Amino acid sequence: MTTVVQKFGGTSVGNVTKIKRVAERIKRKMDEGKKVVTVVSAMGKSTDKLVELANDITDSPDPREMDMLLTTGEQVTISLVVMALKEMGVDAVSLTGWQAGIETEDVHQDARITDIKTENVQQHLDEGKAVLVAGFQGVSETGDITTLGRGGSDTTAVALAAALKAESCSIYTDVTGVFTADPRYVKNARKLDGISYDEMLELANLGAGVLHPRAVEFAKNYNVSLIVRSSMEDVEGTIVEEEAPMEQNLIVRGLAFEEDVTKITIERLPNQYDTMSNLFSLLAEQGISVDIIIQQMTADHGLNVSFSIDTASLGKALDVLHNNKVNLCYSTIRHESTLAKVSIVGSGMVSNPGVAADMFTVLSDEEVAIKMVSTSEIAVSAVVPEQDMVKAVEALHSFFGLDAKEKAKIEAVKA
Amino acid sequence: MTTVVQKFGGTSVGNVTKIKRVAERIKRKMDEGKKVVTVVSAMGKSTDKLVELANDITDSPDPREMDMLLTTGEQVTISLVVMALKEMGVDAVSLTGWQAGIETEDVHQDARITDIKTENVQQHLDEGKAVLVAGFQGVSETGDITTLGRGGSDTTAVALAAALKAESCSIYTDVTGVFTADPRYVKNARKLDGISYDEMLELANLGAGVLHPRAVEFAKNYNVSLIVRSSMEDVEGTIVEEEAPMEQNLIVRGLAFEEDVTKITIERLPNQYDTMSNLFSLLAEQGISVDIIIQQMTADHGLNVSFSIDTASLGKALDVLHNNKVNLCYSTIRHESTLAKVSIVGSGMVSNPGVAADMFTVLSDEEVAIKMVSTSEIAVSAVVPEQDMVKAVEALHSFFGLDAKEKAKIEAVKA
Repeated sequence: MTTVVQKFGGTSVGNVTKIKRVAERIKRKMDEGKKVVTVVSAMGKSTDKLVELANDITDSPDPREMDMLLTTGEQVTISLVVMALKEMGVDAVSLTGWQAGIETEDVHQDARITDIKTENVQQHLDEGKAVLVAGFQGVSETGDITTLGRGGSDTTAVALAAALKAESCSIYTDVTGVFTADPRYVKNARKLDGISYDEMLELANLGAGVLHPRAVEFAKNYNVSLIVRSSMEDVEGTIVEEEAPMEQNLIVRGLAFEEDVTKITIERLPNQYDTMSNLFSLLAEQGISVDIIIQQMTADHGLNVSFSIDTASLGKALDVLHNNKVNLCYSTIRHESTLAKVSIVGSGMVSNPGVAADMFTVLSDEEVAIKMVSTSEIAVSAVVPEQDMVKAVEALHSFFGLDAKEKAKIEAVKA
Repeated sequence: MTTVVQKFGGTSVGNVTKIKRVAERIKRKMDEGKKVVTVVSAMGKSTDKLVELANDITDSPDPREMDMLLTTGEQVTISLVVMALKEMGVDAVSLTGWQAGIETEDVHQDARITDIKTENVQQHLDEGKAVLVAGFQGVSETGDITTLGRGGSDTTAVALAAALKAESCSIYTDVTGVFTADPRYVKNARKLDGISYDEMLELANLGAGVLHPRAVEFAKNYNVSLIVRSSMEDVEGTIVEEEAPMEQNLIVRGLAFEEDVTKITIERLPNQYDTMSNLFSLLAEQGISVDIIIQQMTADHGLNVSFSIDTASLGKALDVLHNNKVNLCYSTIRHESTLAKVSIVGSGMVSNPGVAADMFTVLSDEEVAIKMVSTSEIAVSAVVPEQDMVKAVEALHSFFGLDAKEKAKIEAVKA
């Protein structure tokens, strides 16, 4: 008898009716003869309400106590789902993070899982029970309740699937799977049947938002077969695995894009070994996250450095740079906001030179200015004017053969 | 440095303002140089809301899952109180039942504490922190979350005080202490400075409602000095100890009374060894709680048995008795509702014969009919017509010298 892990997010357990629906899904899986472990998040907006309570008391709530407070949300959900299952005649048991043996670093609000002691979960499974585990939470070596940070319930599910050697880990969400591009922007976007861990990681990091990068990383490290699917509709989702099927020798698997990018350029920094280190350490100390970095030598051996940040950090970044003009010893700063980043992602790029060139050609044909470029093994990103973002994405989506396919497939099914 | 334990109930932590007030009280205690452990209940109506959620899912929620659900309430409160303390610059830490080492039987919704492992609490106290413990909850040998039933937070506080060998255990509530009689009924009732465990137990069991009997029992067994006091006003409370000071050689310390009492009389039962056992086992199996029992032989060696129950159980009791008429082999059943029970309580009774006689004389002078009587070492109870209850209580309160004192005291202070 194989074990499966599934995870339902906050919107999927937002009220009593939805909780009953989740219970029915669990029952169906068990009727198929599977051992089922289900990870759930806090109900809908319940976490927000708890945060509000904390904010009424203090502007800077203690991280340990925030974990103590917020983990009650998932604890409520697991107990309610088990009640719904028992009402349907299904034996079930709920387990908090510490009861499920989820051990983490001794860090609050963003702890990493260090180990999972599966004995308790395994015993309940062997007794034929549905096991409900509170997502997002664990326990530290010192016995403190910890949380895993954003997307934590995804990570709980994947880690449990790895520890239990589960057949698969299904992430139920409010979309039907992973798309070639965000369908809210790209009308021809289509759902992917499969995608590789690395591609998913690039997409997750590039802001596609379906899965948390840490969960994907965990799945990759432990080779957990991840399935992203809808909790509303009963349709096939997207499988995230080591090797995704190469559909029609597709080189690019998907596109990611994000707005609110700002490019900052610092001119004529001294050409010294520690220039870059000093500059970016200063920004990091202020919690400013830098994305693309470009370094260029000027004719007279000075250094020009450009980098992109989230526009929300612009004020803070300019403050730091101006306050350190003397130490950093630059001449001028320029910045350009209302930019966007557009990225193409695909494992096929490794063996296909010229993909970046193709991308630039497409952008050039559309008369989209390229402000910055960055590349990785399986991704190319370009910073472009924000107003051109959707045009650029649609042209790239079409050029790399991402939107033609779905139609062809639908026709094939019809024929 | 001595340790004190204090407990605040749901109304005392009902909103953010009240939570801040509790934090201030804790700070004041620490400023006095005490190590402070504080037990809190769930905020105001939050438990009711959780129960409602469960009831929306099922009519018969699983007891284990109800414990999982309801214990989140206290977990929310402890974290918020600690945040409020930290905001005031006081180092503090919150602990759930299992983190505070509160071990219980493996029973849900009404578990008894079996042991308290104080190492964790003690260590935090030694580090100079205020320790907040979630009331009402513990952990079983199997690692399940359990709850202690009604009045559970009182029991948590007393048990912690016993385990930590605390100087005292203060129960903060919405009254200023233990009264000679319920002040809502008896206008001359006055607050007691002290009362013995046994007297408090009689009063608690007789329905005075200030403290849960189990908590008082625990305090008696471990000789914990209990203080009942107001969380609103800053006045002296009532001390519950082994030996309460004998104020003016007072024989009766307080009065308890309750309405909705029904007397059932079963006539002509067979005079056999197992008659009483059969009858009351039947009632117990149906969860009917019997209070006073009177057995009387008839002239022809039949048995008449009378007993009192809560009127709410009358229908169920009559059903059981009628359905078992053949087994029990009685002739008739009579019952009388709209009765009340009035009790006088005082350790002094043991060495003062004639207290019961005095009570009957007072009732007779007031023309109050006595329907049933029961006595213990330190209490005498009489079942009387409900309409005469307040009259009877006021006459007894006055006769046994309970209301004169307060006035004398106020005058003494004035003088």
